[in-house]
Amino acid sequence: MSVLELSPQDLKDILEFTTTLARKAGELILEGSEAIRAVSAESNVNEKKNSVDLVTEYDVRVEELVKKELGIKYPNFKFIGEESYSAGSHPPLTDEPTFCVDPIDGTTNFIHGFPFVCISLGLIYKRRPVLGVIYNPFLNHLYSGVKGQGSYLSQANGEPKKLPLASPPKPLSSLSQALIAVEWGSDRTETTISAKATSFSRLAGDPAQGVLGGKMAHSLRSLGSAALNYGLVAQGGLDLYWEIGCWPWDVCAGIVIAEEAGGLVTGSHDVFAATSASDKFGDVTEDILTGRKYVVVRAIGDTSDEKGLDAQKRIIKEFYDSVQDVAPN
Amino acid sequence: MSVLELSPQDLKDILEFTTTLARKAGELILEGSEAIRAVSAESNVNEKKNSVDLVTEYDVRVEELVKKELGIKYPNFKFIGEESYSAGSHPPLTDEPTFCVDPIDGTTNFIHGFPFVCISLGLIYKRRPVLGVIYNPFLNHLYSGVKGQGSYLSQANGEPKKLPLASPPKPLSSLSQALIAVEWGSDRTETTISAKATSFSRLAGDPAQGVLGGKMAHSLRSLGSAALNYGLVAQGGLDLYWEIGCWPWDVCAGIVIAEEAGGLVTGSHDVFAATSASDKFGDVTEDILTGRKYVVVRAIGDTSDEKGLDAQKRIIKEFYDSVQDVAPN
Repeated sequence: MSVLELSPQDLKDILEFTTTLARKAGELILEGSEAIRAVSAESNVNEKKNSVDLVTEYDVRVEELVKKELGIKYPNFKFIGEESYSAGSHPPLTDEPTFCVDPIDGTTNFIHGFPFVCISLGLIYKRRPVLGVIYNPFLNHLYSGVKGQGSYLSQANGEPKKLPLASPPKPLSSLSQALIAVEWGSDRTETTISAKATSFSRLAGDPAQGVLGGKMAHSLRSLGSAALNYGLVAQGGLDLYWEIGCWPWDVCAGIVIAEEAGGLVTGSHDVFAATSASDKFGDVTEDILTGRKYVVVRAIGDTSDEKGLDAQKRIIKEFYDSVQDVAPN
Repeated sequence: MSVLELSPQDLKDILEFTTTLARKAGELILEGSEAIRAVSAESNVNEKKNSVDLVTEYDVRVEELVKKELGIKYPNFKFIGEESYSAGSHPPLTDEPTFCVDPIDGTTNFIHGFPFVCISLGLIYKRRPVLGVIYNPFLNHLYSGVKGQGSYLSQANGEPKKLPLASPPKPLSSLSQALIAVEWGSDRTETTISAKATSFSRLAGDPAQGVLGGKMAHSLRSLGSAALNYGLVAQGGLDLYWEIGCWPWDVCAGIVIAEEAGGLVTGSHDVFAATSASDKFGDVTEDILTGRKYVVVRAIGDTSDEKGLDAQKRIIKEFYDSVQDVAPN
C-alpha cells in the first residue's frame, strides 16, 4: 500500500477541521474542570481519589471525542494518544499521516483549576511533525501552525496574529537576557531533583556573587504545560524552554508552531552535540520526536554579525553547557 | 488633624473608581508592551538598554497617571508607589488612607512579552490593607476586593465571579496535595539561590525516593508576578504562594483579595511562630505588610475534624518546616 500523499491544501483543510475540533474538546475540558471543582468542594474526605478519577475520566473522554471525530473524517490516518498509548507496545512510527494528541496537557493544573491547560493536537507525516493546534479553553488562546504555512495565535476569538509577535524577531545576546521555562516534572527521585535544582540554580545565579557557572538569566518560569510553553516560545514571550521526560504528544503540535514561528527545536545534549555542526541541525527527526528530551529556542533576529540560526545554536550551546542531562523516567 | 473616616460605602465608591483607573492604566501598559516589542525588534545592537529604558519610562508613566488621578479624586489620601518610593527615606505608615501601588507588577515579564503583568492598586487604612484591584491587561483578568465585602474575578469583561471559585472551598490535606507558587526573584547571590534551590527541592522531592524531607507537592509554579500569584491563590488555582523580598505595593492589593476569598496571609517564619498560637494569627499588621516576607494559603474547606483556619495553620507550619528563611536583599 502506498503512503497517503498530503498537499498543502490538504493540510489547510486538516487545520480547519482540527481547529474546530480543538475548540469542541476545549468545551469538554471546561466541563471537566467544573465537575472537579464541584466534587472537590463536596468531598472533603476523599478529595484526591475523586479528583484523580475525574481527571482520568475527562482525559479519556476528550481523547475518545477527538479520536472518534478524526477517525470519521480521516479514516486512513493513524492515531497516537496519551490515553490509548501503552508504554512499550506502541507501534513504531510509519510514513503514514498520524495524529499525535494529548487530550489534556497540564493535568496537574487541570486538577487545581490553574488556568494553563490545553488540548495539544499534532499531525506527523513522513515521520515529521507537520501540523499543530494547541487550545487553552481557560484563557481562550488558540495556537496553530502548518509546516511551510506559518503559525498563528488567536486570543479571545480575535483575528489570528502571525507568530512570532515581534517582527523582525528580537535579538538574544546570551542567556543573561533570557526568560527561560523549566519544569519540576513528575520524576521526583533524588537524582533528578538534585540535577534540576543544580541546573536551575546555575541558570538563575549570579557568577559575580558566588554562583559557580551562574548565567544570571532574567528569570525562570514554570507553568506546567509543555504544549503551552512551546506556544509561548513561538510567540516570543519565552526565550527558551527545556524539558526532559515528556512525550511526543506533549510536544508534537508545539514543535510545528514553534518552528513555523522561526523557533528551533532539537533534542538532548548528545543530539545537539552530534548535529549542531551539521546540516541536519534543526531537523526534528523521529529520534528527536520520540527521544523525550527537548529544547526549543525562539526566533532570534539576525544581527550584522550573525544569522538567526547561528544565534540559536549559540544560545543552545550556552544552555547545554550550563544544565545537567538526566535520564527520563 | 483627625484621621479620615471611611465607611463601607466609601470603600465601594473607591473600588469603582480604582477599577476604572486600573483598566485605564492597563491600556497604557499594553501601549508600553507594543513599544518595547517594536524597539526590541529594531535595535539589534543595543537591545537591553532600549528595553530597560522603555520599561522604566512606562513604569513611571503608569505611576504618574495613577497618582495624578487618585490625587485629584482623593486629595487627602496618601500615596506609596514603587517609582516614587526611595528606599530609606519613605514616610512611615500612618492611620490615614494610603494608596499603595505597583504600576507594573511583573516587569521582567513585561520586557519579554510574557503575559503575566498587571497593575496592583491597594489601599491601606488604619495601617491595614482594606481594598485591592489587580488588573492584567494581557489576559483581561481583573481581581478586586474590599475588606468585609468579598473579592471577585472578572475575566474578559464577564460578570465578576465571587472568590474562591470553588464553593465551599476545596480541602487540602497536606503539601503533598498542593500546587505551590515560588519565585526565583531578583536576589541571585549564592546564599539566596542555594537556600531557594534546597527549599524548592524539598517541596518537590519524593521522600520515598531519597529526597530528605521531601514533601512531594503536586508541583511548583513560577509566574513572575507577586500580585497575580495572590490573585491565583484567591481564586483557588494555586494553594500557596511564598515570597521573600517583595515590597508592600507588590502584595497590598493581593492581600485584601486573598483574605476576602478566605485566604490567610502571614509573614516570616518568626512571625508565624510568634502568632500561630495566638488570636493575632491572620492579622496582617504593619510589620507583616512591610516585612518583605509573605506566605498566603487559600481558603480550605472545613472537614468534620478541622476548621479551615486550623487547616491553614497546619499547612503553613508544614511549609515553614520545609523551607529555609533568608534575608531579603
